[in-house]
Amino acid sequence: MVQVTPWEVAKKIDYDRLTKEFGLAPLPELPKVFNDFHLFRRGIIFAQRDFDRIITSVKEKKPFAMMTGLMPSGKMHFGHKMVADQVIFYQSLGAKVYLNVADIEAYNSRNPNMKELRETAVNEYLINYVALGLDLKKCDLYFQSERSKDNKKSNAYYRLAGMLARHGTFNEFKGVYGEITPGKMTSALLQAADMLHPQLPEFEGGPLPVVVPVGADQDPHIRLARGLARRIKEYKFMPISSTSNIFMPGLKGGKMSSSDPTSYIALTDSPAEAAKKIKKYAFSGGKATLEEHRKKGGDPHIDVSYQMLRYGLEPNDKNLKKLHDDYIVGKLLSGELKNILVEKMTLFLLDHQKKREKAKSKVEKFLS
Amino acid sequence: MVQVTPWEVAKKIDYDRLTKEFGLAPLPELPKVFNDFHLFRRGIIFAQRDFDRIITSVKEKKPFAMMTGLMPSGKMHFGHKMVADQVIFYQSLGAKVYLNVADIEAYNSRNPNMKELRETAVNEYLINYVALGLDLKKCDLYFQSERSKDNKKSNAYYRLAGMLARHGTFNEFKGVYGEITPGKMTSALLQAADMLHPQLPEFEGGPLPVVVPVGADQDPHIRLARGLARRIKEYKFMPISSTSNIFMPGLKGGKMSSSDPTSYIALTDSPAEAAKKIKKYAFSGGKATLEEHRKKGGDPHIDVSYQMLRYGLEPNDKNLKKLHDDYIVGKLLSGELKNILVEKMTLFLLDHQKKREKAKSKVEKFLS
Repeated sequence: MVQVTPWEVAKKIDYDRLTKEFGLAPLPELPKVFNDFHLFRRGIIFAQRDFDRIITSVKEKKPFAMMTGLMPSGKMHFGHKMVADQVIFYQSLGAKVYLNVADIEAYNSRNPNMKELRETAVNEYLINYVALGLDLKKCDLYFQSERSKDNKKSNAYYRLAGMLARHGTFNEFKGVYGEITPGKMTSALLQAADMLHPQLPEFEGGPLPVVVPVGADQDPHIRLARGLARRIKEYKFMPISSTSNIFMPGLKGGKMSSSDPTSYIALTDSPAEAAKKIKKYAFSGGKATLEEHRKKGGDPHIDVSYQMLRYGLEPNDKNLKKLHDDYIVGKLLSGELKNILVEKMTLFLLDHQKKREKAKSKVEKFLS
Repeated sequence: MVQVTPWEVAKKIDYDRLTKEFGLAPLPELPKVFNDFHLFRRGIIFAQRDFDRIITSVKEKKPFAMMTGLMPSGKMHFGHKMVADQVIFYQSLGAKVYLNVADIEAYNSRNPNMKELRETAVNEYLINYVALGLDLKKCDLYFQSERSKDNKKSNAYYRLAGMLARHGTFNEFKGVYGEITPGKMTSALLQAADMLHPQLPEFEGGPLPVVVPVGADQDPHIRLARGLARRIKEYKFMPISSTSNIFMPGLKGGKMSSSDPTSYIALTDSPAEAAKKIKKYAFSGGKATLEEHRKKGGDPHIDVSYQMLRYGLEPNDKNLKKLHDDYIVGKLLSGELKNILVEKMTLFLLDHQKKREKAKSKVEKFLS
């Protein structure tokens, strides 16, 4: 299997190889409505499976769904925000959103305290999602441990997870997860059910296009769910559509990891904390000396500050291009680029954290 | 692991060894109410785990539950009837009965047609259970694929199955199932949830004694569920109590197998069919010649006709003892023993099949 490390991502290498080996297809020509979204327009979403179905649904105003999950563990950072951005984008296109809190998966792989998992889900993730613009009313938000208040829906979802087990082999699961444990096995089956169950009679009424946007390393999960769906005869499923996005690099250029706060900016970090982290840790694409930088220019592809602007903090393409162009010719210095990021980050965090206050009561109301 | 074959059972060997290796305990002195039930009185139930809790609950009229599952596959035969007899016995003692139709397990291991599985469950098993005396009103009857009409109960049950995955290793599951597949893994977790979930707050309100009567070969499932229950910290479970019964031998002395109709009498076999099978196939403990039999006597322990009478078709102990004693001294011939069985069987089947007619509407009403 192709190894994808965030470092490679930052270096912008070999997404072509990845695409080939996973059997992903490049993105087709996209209608304007997709390119209005910066993650498509800026090539951050770079590949797809059966995405034509989604394009057609949008064009013809036919129903479709999008599904994603969140792991209620650690802080919600800018890597997670990229997922939320996509959820909110598809919601704006009219998709029925299925948003899953993977608490059983988190219980099995991380923290065996369901109460803590629930608190993290609510305080970190759901409140941030709503503050970012998620409309809970147009969303089927659920916990893996508690699918629905409608018993028919709950039973249908768990029944599907149980039945999918027949249609996979251990080697298949190993291919996705590496070393497999009973906990991972269970999580994998629930995850496949998460992706497929919108098409059950009890949910959207039958087969319909469902898009699952994932990071490049998660495509094996998509393939697994597609394989299981093909083999189960009790239900007729339309194959899952997906998009793959490149990773957001961690602050230090390596992996962005929930367990290392110096690798990310959390959406609840104070502007001061965020500024400090950026100044101290953000990996720079600049040269070793001012003189050399002025002469040879910097490399925006590996410059984390530039990348964070590209991933969304600078929404204006012209401004972004100017930063890019100035940086590669050495006109813009690394420190200056960091300052620009700090400024944008500060504005974002202040605004977002204000929105969180309103979001809190919405989430509480929704869950009660 | 000790190999237990029905043949060994018929030969009455080494249940002591079995008890030791599985860590089962022999039955303690039982109150009369237990010995009134022929399966206890006649030593067919021969070992236990933590059964003192159940005895105490019965003595002190405190709440307890019993749980068992049925595999909706093939015909319900006299081997299955022994389970139903125990369910009905515990119901008569005041136990809350949890009766599970293991349709997800059957789907994963046998027949991938949920509709057929449901029909088999209803027409073969549930109607027979009710005809035998099960009171559906005092019973939580459910399908693994559809736990409850109460969404809180459904969610709690499936949540438990998902969480139990964290607390077992593959080797542990392999120890129980031999070669393990994703389907078996899922079934094992649901089975553990089946045994444990009566103790959840959403069901009986908290820890209480639950007895699971099993065949001698199924004790590893009990041990697995007890182990998982001990390790999960989110819930407080009282360890599962269990009893183990010896096998009912197949007609031909070997294994009673759903896939071989000459190995069993089904509860829906016509009296004529049953008589034919008994005469043609029932393994005899008699001697090769009439002369030798008269001289040396027969062996009731390996005589399937005698055993079927012992397992319940002859409810009167004195009558049974007379058959036993007459047989071992050669006074009673194999053919005569078969005729007695045929007579008892005919009466049972005629009566049972009449009761099935009434039971049908009860089951239909209950499920709708």
